[in-house]
Order: sequence, then structure tokens, then C-alpha cells
Amino acid sequence: MNLGIILYVLGMVCMFEAGFLLLPLFTAFLYQEYNIVQVYGICIVICMVIGLILVMTTRKNRADMKPKEGVAIVGLSWLVLSLLGALPFFLSGEIPHYIDAFFETVSGFTTTGSTILTDVDAMSYGSRMWRSFTHWVGGMGVLVFLLALLPSKNGSFMNLMMAESPGPDVSKLVPKVRDTAKYLYWIYIGMTAIQLILLLLAGMQVFDAVTLTFGTAGTGGFAVRSSGFEDYTILQQGIIAVFMMLFGINFNFYFLLIKGKLKDAFKMEEVLTYLGIIVAVTAVIVISVYPMFNNLFYAIHHVFFTVSSLITTTGYATVDFNLWPSIALVLLVTIMFIGACAGSTGGGIKVGRINIMVKGIVKEFYTLFHPRSVKKVRMDGRPIAHDVVRSTNVFIALYLLIFVGSVILVSLNGKDLVTTFTAVAATLNNIGPGLAGVGPMSNFSELSYFSKLVLSFDMLAGRLELLPIIMLLIPSMWKVSRKPRQNLKG
Amino acid sequence: MNLGIILYVLGMVCMFEAGFLLLPLFTAFLYQEYNIVQVYGICIVICMVIGLILVMTTRKNRADMKPKEGVAIVGLSWLVLSLLGALPFFLSGEIPHYIDAFFETVSGFTTTGSTILTDVDAMSYGSRMWRSFTHWVGGMGVLVFLLALLPSKNGSFMNLMMAESPGPDVSKLVPKVRDTAKYLYWIYIGMTAIQLILLLLAGMQVFDAVTLTFGTAGTGGFAVRSSGFEDYTILQQGIIAVFMMLFGINFNFYFLLIKGKLKDAFKMEEVLTYLGIIVAVTAVIVISVYPMFNNLFYAIHHVFFTVSSLITTTGYATVDFNLWPSIALVLLVTIMFIGACAGSTGGGIKVGRINIMVKGIVKEFYTLFHPRSVKKVRMDGRPIAHDVVRSTNVFIALYLLIFVGSVILVSLNGKDLVTTFTAVAATLNNIGPGLAGVGPMSNFSELSYFSKLVLSFDMLAGRLELLPIIMLLIPSMWKVSRKPRQNLKG
Repeated sequence: MNLGIILYVLGMVCMFEAGFLLLPLFTAFLYQEYNIVQVYGICIVICMVIGLILVMTTRKNRADMKPKEGVAIVGLSWLVLSLLGALPFFLSGEIPHYIDAFFETVSGFTTTGSTILTDVDAMSYGSRMWRSFTHWVGGMGVLVFLLALLPSKNGSFMNLMMAESPGPDVSKLVPKVRDTAKYLYWIYIGMTAIQLILLLLAGMQVFDAVTLTFGTAGTGGFAVRSSGFEDYTILQQGIIAVFMMLFGINFNFYFLLIKGKLKDAFKMEEVLTYLGIIVAVTAVIVISVYPMFNNLFYAIHHVFFTVSSLITTTGYATVDFNLWPSIALVLLVTIMFIGACAGSTGGGIKVGRINIMVKGIVKEFYTLFHPRSVKKVRMDGRPIAHDVVRSTNVFIALYLLIFVGSVILVSLNGKDLVTTFTAVAATLNNIGPGLAGVGPMSNFSELSYFSKLVLSFDMLAGRLELLPIIMLLIPSMWKVSRKPRQNLKG
Repeated sequence: MNLGIILYVLGMVCMFEAGFLLLPLFTAFLYQEYNIVQVYGICIVICMVIGLILVMTTRKNRADMKPKEGVAIVGLSWLVLSLLGALPFFLSGEIPHYIDAFFETVSGFTTTGSTILTDVDAMSYGSRMWRSFTHWVGGMGVLVFLLALLPSKNGSFMNLMMAESPGPDVSKLVPKVRDTAKYLYWIYIGMTAIQLILLLLAGMQVFDAVTLTFGTAGTGGFAVRSSGFEDYTILQQGIIAVFMMLFGINFNFYFLLIKGKLKDAFKMEEVLTYLGIIVAVTAVIVISVYPMFNNLFYAIHHVFFTVSSLITTTGYATVDFNLWPSIALVLLVTIMFIGACAGSTGGGIKVGRINIMVKGIVKEFYTLFHPRSVKKVRMDGRPIAHDVVRSTNVFIALYLLIFVGSVILVSLNGKDLVTTFTAVAATLNNIGPGLAGVGPMSNFSELSYFSKLVLSFDMLAGRLELLPIIMLLIPSMWKVSRKPRQNLKG
């Protein structure tokens, strides 16, 4: 393990965080919350100092990154980002216990949206802005952002991008990885801007429009008012519903659209499956809940909003869907686990993985019928390497293990089974609210600090697709080597 | 698809069923239930006639079996066995609706133990004996039994045995498959006899001893008294607890013991993992429930009984464990899904598969650290073929798909989420009772007939390890070829 490069990148992350903190500072200033301005100012100084020390002392140790270093950097960066990001909540006294502040910040950056706050309205505008902004920052990933802006000598940042980007594989859209990252960010920024403008045109207040757009873009789901979505118009809700769905689409789709390759874009199997699931699930649920609304337009509106919110694991709600019939609940829980597309800001297992998994099963049956065939699993017409199929299966297996292990640890908290089970499901899938004791009408504040740490781990593991966070727990990972690399050795 | 061989084997299955039905007929005769004797007599004649017709008309079409035919035969045989086995319950009027009778019979043969009966005591001794006997017959599998007794020209029955035997792979214990099957049956019969004798020595009534031994050996779990286990002594309960655990061990272990290969036997990783899980889970639960018993002996007794019953997916209960704390419930649900060893009569995913899954994950991490290594997953010191690792992963993926699909279908029934979810979990894992509406204090009678058919499918899929039952649903499976095989073609 080359500590030099790791510490250097962590230093850069600290300096970026200082930059991010300017937005809540500015917001607090606008709303004349001068004590909050002071807190954010102090945090910016802390981040800058730590960042500068790390970058200055490690500059000479930079070298190529090996895959495991890339993975470790991602895991550590998100940890540092959350540890420092929790400071303003803690120092301002708005979240008195540091572990609560850490949980809230992890929930923000991982775009989970689970909260320990009992009254959102009591929080300052500055801190509410920071809370929502963490969704936007975490949605696309900090390191890819760093990579897009920083000059770097070589392309070894690919490993880093693969570790941070959600989904089974990152297609190189353009030959240079840095250019890919830049494209992705411009798409992200562009879509965010369009949503913000539409919400403003639809008459939403600026503060709500900005924070909800951040929550939508990152598919995070923190509420910004205690009243939830009640005060917004049908049109405003509709804009958010559509954009949640759009931010759940693989960004390669938009890249192909921009490049004019419409045919390729609309052939992307993952995107088609994703849209197909949304349409099918919305249709079935509309049929099952129609008697509760007695108005087809409202039924479709609220069901589509809910489906779009849950498949992308955003977690916004316009109605209390806990009251819907079993078939609706089962379908909603199912799409929560499936999640959005790879290469989007959404959470969950990802549609692309489900695609590969199903194709793997079909292939297994085909092999049984035709023992001598050599058939490969294909996506978008191209054969998929055995590696990807295997690692997809390993991912799902590891996902199950972490799920079961976390449920066992959280069950020590002594809460009922539904609370225990859905607290883990909601955090590991980066959804936000669970059911019962952690349901949409309740929050995570009642859990023990041990449970909150386990669930923070689950949020990070879910957002970073398990590997970068799991690796931090493996001792042999930390064998330090400071020798210069030789090409002959691995 | 060669229909000749399939129909021939199905005919043999019918004739075997006629033979099995002699035991309840004899029991009914002993208890002077003459109308029941008549019903079983009629059913025996029906089975014999169908069996003879099938065997006589297809005798000449016999040929080698291809893998997919072996798989299809297993699926169809279990379906025929259950359809005919349900007849006496239906014809005697003891279960008035045929789908209920079918559900109960499938639950028996698949050693699930889920019941639609509201009052077991109201059933005749003959039918209660048949109900418990289906557990014993289904525990080891009918076709392996058939194979062990029938003369056959060649060894192509291996495919059949692999499809029916629970677990990821069947080691050939001895060079000839038929000999393997015979050994397994002698071990099964021998252990059954020992348990029966011990229960009789412990003072249990003959009827209870015989039926409970059948239920234990098959890890089925049908109760034979409405009072459940209350009337049995601690010693009798203890014998059953130990034998449930023993019937959950891979039978290769006993084979190695008999052959004097103690070292090899006690090196079997799956068996060690299985015993380790039992000890660890029992210990943790004893600590968590000790305050409820206030007596270490009783706490250990009831916890060990429960753990042994649930990990083997038998489903017997001496206490209402629904009242235990969350950590105990979560651990119990976890071991229900894990299940017993491959090559035992227990259900669930199987300890061996979990072993392989975990090793696959570890290997994936190792490859990340050492990209140029070529490391294989090993079990018992021997490398495991990539095929087995892959098909284990595919199994788990398919298992999840069936689980989710079934939950969606059963949710149409409109029951609450816990009932819906645990009804599927309990049947797919061949456990027996679920929670809430299908909990140990309730039963499956309230569900719709559609749900009962879905759950019957799940029981068969769970017992036959998915493939043989899934294949029956694939249309291209049924392309008939009556041409004689040529070696050059596949």
C-alpha cells in the first residue's frame, strides 16, 4: 500500500470539502444566521488546514495507483468527507451528539435520506442547505469530480472512477477517462439546472427549489420542511417525479443522446428494462389503489411519484403508501431492492445487475439443454466477460451477507423485527425511510448509537457498492510498501 | 425429449406409491377404521392400474436418459406422486377440497410440514400415518429409492439422482451410482430404526413414536396431536432434538464413519460449519433468553430443540419462540434460510452452498489484491470446478427471483406483509410454519386456492432445488424427439 498517494488524495478531498461548505455559509449569510456563518467559517478553516498539511507533506510520494489503492482511496475519502461534513451540525449544536451528526452526514453524502431529526423546521437555513447539498455532491461522487478538474499525469484514475461510480461497469464513453468524467458532470449540472429552472417557473420558492433539486438530482430524499410535500402543487410534484426518474437513468444514455446516437441510446437494455419496470409497476399499482383515489389522474400522479421515488431510492413521498394494499407494498419493496440504473445517481442493487443475473440464469438453463454450446451472456448485443457475470453474482452474494450480518447486529438493539429488518434494507439500499419504528412517519433517532454506526457503515457500503468499504476492514489491505514500484513485480 | 422413458418411470412411480399406501391401510385396519381402509384400498388400485398401463405401453421405448430428461422425470414424478397421494385425503372427505389435499400432500412429500388442517386430532389414524409417512418417503427421495431397487442396464441414472438429491453436488461414494443409493438408504433406514427404538424405550406410545420418527427423519414436521409437543417428556423431546440435528448432516459423513474413515469424516467442512453454526447460535440465544427460563438446563434444552428444528427446517416446536427477543428471532430466521447440509434430508439453501458462496467472495477479494494469481475455490482440500461455483451463484440468484415472484403472486391474496412474506419463505425453504397469519399458532387454511397452488409450487421447487420444477414451465423443454439417438449429434 502506497500511503503517499492515499494521503495526497485525502488532502485534496479536505480542500474540496472546504469549497463545498461555502454554499451553506453563503445561505446562512443571506438568511442573517450569523452564528451559523461563524460555525461554517470555522469548519472551512479546519478543512483547509488539514487539507494543506496532507497535500504539502505528501506531494513527492505520488505515484501510479494500483487497483487496491484506488479502492482504498474511495472508501477513505467518503469516510473523511463524512467525518468533516458532520462538524457544522455538531459545532452549531443543531445535532448535539457527534454520532448523530455523522449518521446524518453519511445519510446525506450516500444519498440515503434517512434522518435522525425530529423537526426539520427547527434547523437553520444554512444547515438545511448543507444537508441537501451533500445529496448533490454525493450523487455523482466526489472523486470523479476531483478527477475531472485536477490535472493528472496519467490515466490511472480509471480505477478510482470504477470504484466510486455506481453499477457493474463503467464504459469509457470517450478514450480519456478524465474527459468521460467531465462529460458526466456537465450532464449532471445541466440536468440539475433545468430542473431548478422548471421548479422556479412552476412557482416554487427559491430555497425549496434549490434544496429539492439537490435532493432529486442525488436521488437523496431529505425533506426541507416538516410538512413534507403537502404544500407543493401537483405541477411541482410532477416535475420532481419526472426528474427523479430521469436521474435514475444510466448517464451514458444522455451522452449518446447528446452525441446524436439516438439508435444506440434507445437500444440500451438496462434503460429499457428500467423504464419498462416503472411503467409496469405503476400500471399494476394504479389498478390496485384506484378505489382509494376515485380519480384516475390523481391515482396515476401519486403512484408514478411513489414508484419514481422508490425505484431511484430517493424516498420523497406525496402520500402515505403504507396504507396501500399488499400487492402494492410488495411491488414497492421489490423495486426498492432493484434500484435504478448503473451509472446513475440512484441506489439499490441496480437494474443492470438484475439484467446480468437473469441472463446468467437463462444461460445456465440453455447449457443444460445444449451441453456442448459455448454461449456468452450478452448486454446491448455485446458479449459480457465471464468476470463481470461472476463478480455480479459475487456482489449479490456479498450483499446478502452484509444484509444478514447487519440485521443481526441491529437486532441487539431490541427493536421489533420489521423495524430492524427495514432499517437495514433502507440504509443498505440508500432509500431513506423504512417501516414501523423507522417508517416515513418516524425517524432513526430512537436507535442506539451502535445501531447508528452499523447503519452508517451500511449506507457507505451501499453507496460505494460494498467493495471500497469492506476493504477498509481487511487487515492485510494495510501492508505498507514505500518502495518504488518495479514493472516486473505485480 | 424422449417421452417413452419419462412415461415408463412415471409408471414405476405410480406402482411404488401403491406400495407406500399399504402402510396407512394397515394402520387404519389396526385402529378398526374400516371406511378409511376402503378408501386406501381404492387408491392403491387406482395407482396400480395407472402404473401398469404406463409401464406396459412404454416398455419398448426405454433408452438412455439425457440430463434434461432426468431433470424432467424428477419434476414430473414428484408432481404425479403428490397428485395421487392427495387422493385418500380427498376421497375420505377428511380434506374436502382437492387443492387443500394436494397442498397437504406436497407439504408432506417435500418435508415442509405446512398444514391446512385446523384440528389434527379429528383425522383418522390411517390418514395421519399417511401424512407422516409422506415425510419419510420424501425425505430421501422416491426416485433414488426406485433406482436403488430396480435393475437397470446402465449408469445413466446418475443424472436423475443429481436432480433429486438435495445440495450442490452428489459425490459418488462408491463407483456405481446404484450402490451409492443403496448405501444411503441403508443409513437412512438404520438411523430411523435407532430413533424409533430410543423413543419406544423412552416410553412413547407406538403411534406417536412411529409418526414422529418419520417426521424427524424426513425433517418434515407435521404434528400428530393437536396438543403439539406438550405431552412428551423432556427425554423424548431431547431424543427428537438430537435426531433432527443428525438427519441434517450430509449422509456422506455417515458413510465415511461406517467405512472407518474417521479422519476424512471429521474433516468435512460442510459438517463442521453446520455443527459450528448450531453451537454458536444455540449459545447466543441461550444467553438472550436465559431470563425467561431462569434455569440453565431448560433454557439449553428448549433453545437446542428450536435451533435443531429450524436449521434442519423440520418445524417442530416445544415453546412459542415468537416471544423471544429480536436477536433470537433474527438468528432463527437466518438459520431457516441457511438450512441443513447438502446430501441430508433438510431443506433451505444448504450449508455447503453458503460455504461455496463465502469462499467465492474471499477469492474475489484475493484476486483484487493479487491480480495475477490463479486461485481456485476449495472444499475439503479439493479444488472446486468453476462450474460448481457458478451454478451455486446462479442457484442463489434463481432462488431470489422465485422468492420475489412468489411473494408478488401471494400478495394478491391481500394478507398482511408478514404473512405474505413468511408464507413464501416457509414453503420455499420447506420449513413449515411462518409468522403472523401462517404462524405456529395458525395455519395455511385461510389462504386462497391460488396462493395454495403458488406455495405448492414453491415447496416442490424448494425440495427439488428449483431446476426440475422450473424446467417443467419452459415450453422448449417439451420438444418431443422419438428418433433413436445418434452419437454424433448432441
